[in-house]
Amino acid sequence: MSMHRLQKLQELQRNAGIDCVAIVPGANMLYFTGVHYHLSERPIIAIFPASAGVQPALIVPAFEAGKALNGPFRIDWRVYSYMDGQDPQTAADQAVTDLGLDGRAIGVEPTAMRILESSLISHRAAQARMTSAVDILKQMRMTKDDDELARMRRAAKVPERVLAEAIKRLKPGMTEREAAGVFMSVSFEQNPQEPASPPLVQTGLSAAFPHAFAGGRAIQPGDLMVVDFGAVVEDYGSDITRTIAVGGEPSDEMKRVYEVVRQANAAGRAAVRPGILAEDVDRAAREVIEQAGYGRYFTHRTGHGLGLEGHEAPYMVKGDKTVLQPGMTFTVEPGIYIEGKGGVRIEDDMVVTDDGGESLTTFSRDLIVA
Amino acid sequence: MSMHRLQKLQELQRNAGIDCVAIVPGANMLYFTGVHYHLSERPIIAIFPASAGVQPALIVPAFEAGKALNGPFRIDWRVYSYMDGQDPQTAADQAVTDLGLDGRAIGVEPTAMRILESSLISHRAAQARMTSAVDILKQMRMTKDDDELARMRRAAKVPERVLAEAIKRLKPGMTEREAAGVFMSVSFEQNPQEPASPPLVQTGLSAAFPHAFAGGRAIQPGDLMVVDFGAVVEDYGSDITRTIAVGGEPSDEMKRVYEVVRQANAAGRAAVRPGILAEDVDRAAREVIEQAGYGRYFTHRTGHGLGLEGHEAPYMVKGDKTVLQPGMTFTVEPGIYIEGKGGVRIEDDMVVTDDGGESLTTFSRDLIVA
Repeated sequence: MSMHRLQKLQELQRNAGIDCVAIVPGANMLYFTGVHYHLSERPIIAIFPASAGVQPALIVPAFEAGKALNGPFRIDWRVYSYMDGQDPQTAADQAVTDLGLDGRAIGVEPTAMRILESSLISHRAAQARMTSAVDILKQMRMTKDDDELARMRRAAKVPERVLAEAIKRLKPGMTEREAAGVFMSVSFEQNPQEPASPPLVQTGLSAAFPHAFAGGRAIQPGDLMVVDFGAVVEDYGSDITRTIAVGGEPSDEMKRVYEVVRQANAAGRAAVRPGILAEDVDRAAREVIEQAGYGRYFTHRTGHGLGLEGHEAPYMVKGDKTVLQPGMTFTVEPGIYIEGKGGVRIEDDMVVTDDGGESLTTFSRDLIVA
Repeated sequence: MSMHRLQKLQELQRNAGIDCVAIVPGANMLYFTGVHYHLSERPIIAIFPASAGVQPALIVPAFEAGKALNGPFRIDWRVYSYMDGQDPQTAADQAVTDLGLDGRAIGVEPTAMRILESSLISHRAAQARMTSAVDILKQMRMTKDDDELARMRRAAKVPERVLAEAIKRLKPGMTEREAAGVFMSVSFEQNPQEPASPPLVQTGLSAAFPHAFAGGRAIQPGDLMVVDFGAVVEDYGSDITRTIAVGGEPSDEMKRVYEVVRQANAAGRAAVRPGILAEDVDRAAREVIEQAGYGRYFTHRTGHGLGLEGHEAPYMVKGDKTVLQPGMTFTVEPGIYIEGKGGVRIEDDMVVTDDGGESLTTFSRDLIVA
């Protein structure tokens, strides 16, 4: 798989006129190396040449080199390591010299690479031209391969199991925070490998602020509770939102709001197919809410890409002209939030298929009275 | 308070020959501005001149400017804002020109500032010299002022309340993960303002790996359970570890190990006073463990600084020659981990006082059988 990714990267590099791509720890490092490295005061830089005949270089603390050498993708690294107490500049100078980087075009991630790393590279490559590689990295990562999709399918199942179990444990009178605690506890039980992120839990008034954390408000019978959470399985994430009535039926108005959001979610999902634009998914969901007269209460984009990062390209929002292609994964999560009355959001994770879209999350979207 | 911090910064800048300090979102931004900004694809840079007569500059997205203008520290910002869709380079060029940065020494955080921000500054300051401001920033942040210490005292109380309540809910047969869920739930109940971080919960075998996350192992009667967690209150953190026997007395050997760690923790805390070095605290704790014959099982440093960041300077480790001064805050957390038998760690948060040290965390260090 690695070779496939690195070969694809080389092809895109050559088309973009980029001689080498230099990657620092983060999602792109994981994507291309299969190894978990973390940004710290000890610099780590992977350098991928456009030419297939040149070994990729890894500047790395000596005690971290083994992770890459034994990494799952079997990359033929040339390692430039340094010990604690040694200046990493020596290792970096050697790598830069061996790769002949001075005067070349080096593709970087401007929002990830720090002065720490860029100055290491520049020391012996003062005439190199640093240029953004974001477009080619984004282009590769947006479309998931079979292995990635298998992980995303597994990730999508976890919050569905959590929802099924946690709903049984909800009671009116609990605070939002206590309800969040229930979801956390069940998440711990259901997903051994990963520390769970705190869910967003909102009821009543506060759901008018769609992405705040759980508060101290006690849940009243008939309150609609918006629960937004996910799981990470083998590095790939899921993200789901359901809106649950706790301890009684909601008001007629909020039942109507729920139905509008349910239809908007369905319309957004139904719109997904190869060839349309990311913004078209937004429009499909938004039109349902606008036509029902709630347009001004739908205060955020319809969705975001999902994968190694919780939010990544493409974005389901007016202006995102990404052409959907099979294997792209993203959320569809329309919502309506009315100050003083509460909010509803229903979020699913979609993958673009050869002829449409498939929902990775399938938990019931009917109103549940817990 | 802000003026105090900025005045102090100016003094240190002048001594270091740094004309301006440029800060990006993160702990230092929060420390000097009192405002929560986050690193994103939209650059934010605060520039603090060494001269008191020159206004600090803030390069910021227009929709985020209000946070600084209404910030708690009443800084007399000159704001250079940009709208979505506008190139932030224009705002940055104006700031750099107004401050006359070209050819000057600009202090930066090499492990925080990215190419995104450094290239914005360099565009009109190609002859400026970027130099690390880390030493002066660290020097300021290590010693906490009264306001910071008040927050840290409040933060230290939260995990103590959580411990008292969570211990009542532990049962043999629970998995480590379920126990972690108990701590998460109680943390949610006890600290309304902040999402809790998952605790580290380890028993039996796995405590031999001192910082792994909770696993699926069921807790056996008499197991020692190491629980390491904390809280954040008004941006300042606490960090506590206690080791609890669940469902029965531990073996005589592990009781002896517990007692050695308890004495090492006490010795480390007792060593704290102004004028000694950070590494002296490590030595005081480590000697107790070495003299008891368990030196090779104490596999990590004795502690780390604590404040806006969970790990910050100084570090209680051989080689850290920081001279302790009143107001410095750090952990003392010796441990012994024996493969196949389990581990013990006892961690407290200390502040250096005028004539010694005070433990911010005071939860009983006696062996608790829960």
